[in-house]
Amino acid sequence: MALLRFIQRIYNFYFSPDKMLARRLRSLTGFIPANLNIFKLAFSHKSTISDKAYALQNNERLEYLGDAVLGTIVAEYLFKKYPNSNEGFLTKMRSKIVKRKSLNKIGDKMGLDMLLAEYNNTRLSRSMLGNAVEALVGAVYLEQGYFRTKRFVIRKVLRNYVDVHELESFDDNYKSQLLEWCQKNGQTVSYKLLARYKFEKRDRFKVAVMVNGKKMAVADDFNKKSAEQTASEKAMQALGILIETEETEK
Amino acid sequence: MALLRFIQRIYNFYFSPDKMLARRLRSLTGFIPANLNIFKLAFSHKSTISDKAYALQNNERLEYLGDAVLGTIVAEYLFKKYPNSNEGFLTKMRSKIVKRKSLNKIGDKMGLDMLLAEYNNTRLSRSMLGNAVEALVGAVYLEQGYFRTKRFVIRKVLRNYVDVHELESFDDNYKSQLLEWCQKNGQTVSYKLLARYKFEKRDRFKVAVMVNGKKMAVADDFNKKSAEQTASEKAMQALGILIETEETEK
Repeated sequence: MALLRFIQRIYNFYFSPDKMLARRLRSLTGFIPANLNIFKLAFSHKSTISDKAYALQNNERLEYLGDAVLGTIVAEYLFKKYPNSNEGFLTKMRSKIVKRKSLNKIGDKMGLDMLLAEYNNTRLSRSMLGNAVEALVGAVYLEQGYFRTKRFVIRKVLRNYVDVHELESFDDNYKSQLLEWCQKNGQTVSYKLLARYKFEKRDRFKVAVMVNGKKMAVADDFNKKSAEQTASEKAMQALGILIETEETEK
Repeated sequence: MALLRFIQRIYNFYFSPDKMLARRLRSLTGFIPANLNIFKLAFSHKSTISDKAYALQNNERLEYLGDAVLGTIVAEYLFKKYPNSNEGFLTKMRSKIVKRKSLNKIGDKMGLDMLLAEYNNTRLSRSMLGNAVEALVGAVYLEQGYFRTKRFVIRKVLRNYVDVHELESFDDNYKSQLLEWCQKNGQTVSYKLLARYKFEKRDRFKVAVMVNGKKMAVADDFNKKSAEQTASEKAMQALGILIETEETEK
């Protein structure tokens, strides 16, 4: 069995009509797959494939599996990297790494657009990159099991393309950012509750953020703090002081 | 190393002051833990522990890890059990298994309340049961790795306490359930759009469900279909025909 897979790998690398794929996958993942078909599948968007075979012949099932596996690997990686942090911090860090935008970036840096272009005749969208990362992890998992997938994700993905320390310090607290800016620039900032009303039996808050007494932005939310955060973000955009460390694309 | 762990297990089972815990864990998980402390931690709610040691000395970090591991094991289990289902079905099935309510039930059936009662001096809440399931999975993972945790979850948790086929057929489409009931009982059912308005720049729909021309329930949502679903559920509650296959507790 192991010998057969070994021979299959040698074949895939030197002789298969898909040897270019096998070689690219080796540089991406660190190993030569024995089953190239699941990797081709990983890069095949449903729109490229005939409707008939829809349920199986596309990358969505692999994405589903890879999404879970990737989530667990990242969860464990952070669990061990931050032995003194509580679960709130770990959860936040994890979602910064595995959220759509971040996966799209990772897929881009990994050069998955080349592979996607090869196996799809549709226009590539940005979200296909993140999906392809998940599907690739799913395919690696099916081929290699959990332990080796973990090694691949940590060595080839996280260490190369994710700056954990940058994420750690990335501040999405707009309220404190705005306050800091105002203090530096001799401005005052305050918040004003414009309205409090019932919506779906829940309290909802409409809040304005005032810079030097002037209304800069308004936001509403079921949670007053969240409304203030959103209003602060809008105000920072209006003031042109929002440093975008991430793309604004959804 | 392996010998040391073996001796530790023998000690835990026959001589340790915590031998009762070791024995219960063996019947729960199928193995005797070498490190009983992480299992004690798994059942220790933060409220029982002094604030000082908060960050580490409670089960929340284990819950965080276990939640991810359990999600992946269930994802893979379903992926292999349903080779012909698409990712939408798999995702739905997975969330039926790992959602809070369902985990609380599983923890209850596993008898985790006994262990929780032993390691906590606070009143037990229902959600502590589900959290304890996650924390237990996290502890098993740290002690035994992915492969054995998977075996434990599939053999001792999923096969014993989760009826996948019942979940499969569990219908949360209230609209079709209500229609079926009405047809059986010679009643008519229709939906009426009461209002369509803008909320946060998005369309929002207020919908009523009418049974025999009489307004039975009202609901609103950003999505018209979802509003109809919620209204149908309310109507079924009002008519007393909602068969609760799950507890209503949150």
